[in-house]
Amino acid sequence: MKVSYLGPEGSYTHTAALKTFSSNKTLELIPAPTITNIIHDLEIGLVDKAIVPIENSIAGGVAETVDALQRSENVFVVNEMVLPIDHCLLAVPGTNLKNNLEEITKVTAHHMTLGQCMDFIRKNLASAEIEPSSSNSIAAKRLKNKYAADQDVRHEAVIASRHCAEIYNLEIISESINDASINETRFWILSKDINSGIKTPKNKTTVLFQTKDEPGSLQMILRIFAINHVNLSRIESRPAKKNLGEYLFLIDFDLHRDDPRFEDLMRQVKQHFTYYKWLGSYCRMA
Amino acid sequence: MKVSYLGPEGSYTHTAALKTFSSNKTLELIPAPTITNIIHDLEIGLVDKAIVPIENSIAGGVAETVDALQRSENVFVVNEMVLPIDHCLLAVPGTNLKNNLEEITKVTAHHMTLGQCMDFIRKNLASAEIEPSSSNSIAAKRLKNKYAADQDVRHEAVIASRHCAEIYNLEIISESINDASINETRFWILSKDINSGIKTPKNKTTVLFQTKDEPGSLQMILRIFAINHVNLSRIESRPAKKNLGEYLFLIDFDLHRDDPRFEDLMRQVKQHFTYYKWLGSYCRMA
Repeated sequence: MKVSYLGPEGSYTHTAALKTFSSNKTLELIPAPTITNIIHDLEIGLVDKAIVPIENSIAGGVAETVDALQRSENVFVVNEMVLPIDHCLLAVPGTNLKNNLEEITKVTAHHMTLGQCMDFIRKNLASAEIEPSSSNSIAAKRLKNKYAADQDVRHEAVIASRHCAEIYNLEIISESINDASINETRFWILSKDINSGIKTPKNKTTVLFQTKDEPGSLQMILRIFAINHVNLSRIESRPAKKNLGEYLFLIDFDLHRDDPRFEDLMRQVKQHFTYYKWLGSYCRMA
Repeated sequence: MKVSYLGPEGSYTHTAALKTFSSNKTLELIPAPTITNIIHDLEIGLVDKAIVPIENSIAGGVAETVDALQRSENVFVVNEMVLPIDHCLLAVPGTNLKNNLEEITKVTAHHMTLGQCMDFIRKNLASAEIEPSSSNSIAAKRLKNKYAADQDVRHEAVIASRHCAEIYNLEIISESINDASINETRFWILSKDINSGIKTPKNKTTVLFQTKDEPGSLQMILRIFAINHVNLSRIESRPAKKNLGEYLFLIDFDLHRDDPRFEDLMRQVKQHFTYYKWLGSYCRMA
């Protein structure tokens, strides 16, 4: 079984993939450079499954995941998993940066990671240049590669996982630097086969929709869920990509598409929709 | 008057600042490397005003702006402005990349900009490495500086404005590469003086809140707005940064804090809040 993930090796998505699929003896993990590429690889059949981050408890929703799923065809959420995140500040081995954080001139990480460590950065790395990267693990890998060629990176740091420190032979100079002690990322497992997920009695559904341009239309939709006693666990807005001020909504609610009540609920809410896309019904883990 | 903006020169925030404050004869624009720094500079009194992006019609809300405002004290939204965005693909002068987009090996831009051009990138730059940067203008500036030292950047491109092409002497190799023809970014003008904004009869208020952990609490809040005939123009969720699945909501609604109905409306909705922060009441432009 081939699974695409956000590479290179050592990313949190890589760890999430290893935890999710470790029991599969034929597992082959295929790194992709962006979330858009991960989903595209699944869409065109290069892989059997894909794993993507959907939200982090500090930095919030992953817009690229929602946008890529909206554009995709026949790609569905079949499971979710939650991974604890523990960010470390890493540097090349043998520096004295551990006791001299103020000597760090540059810190690199994915923008979602930077957003999870802003308080730490402001307090400890106030004069460092903040540099985004397409993943934490690519930042770690590049720091290792640059060091091999040029020792002039002894004042640079990256934010990544302990696993990255091992893989790329970097030294941990500060641990657990997240702005909140609880830091978790929820991942979606994607497949073209809607029946390939794990089944449990606790289920949820994710849909994307746009409401009619009428006052209070979102409130009316949420009210239908409340009247039907269906718990809505998450709502996120995304731009409709037409005019400023027009939005799509991504909602998670505790009802599987196979539940007999699903069709009736959807019939009621769809009256208020101008756009609707079912992204998946799957086992609820968070 | 000193105004902080996302630098360096040539960023869309820079253009927005020039448009907003051009009539001020004593204007001094102070570049900052991140949105967090912009707001911090205002908070500590280094500048009199600040300008920050809050949402783009294709890429969505700017999480860093909301998070930095939540952390800040005595910093308020006093105005908004909307800027049309027209992204160009830029390279060093004299290449033949215009007719050979497939020869581009790397494309750099701010992650929000990359998100606005994903279709173009997928179609035309499928084999290029996608590299995030902290602003489009820093990417343009670096490309210019690298070219001066090393001609080996003739296959690299950046996504930025026409203004950036002029400032950094780069060649426009493709124009209007946004995924949707309408592309607009809304900016907030921030100040510590809540009365420093422009006054018009069309006003709105932005607040950040967390609801009580009760079923349907968000729906009840939206219903109070509907019953009071107060139009809600935007709702965005942000993580509460405690546990996964706990959210804050950022809402815009068409009522100024000075309106006599404001207090009564807030009294009704606050019953459902566990956290509340008023970010500002200001003239509605979008």
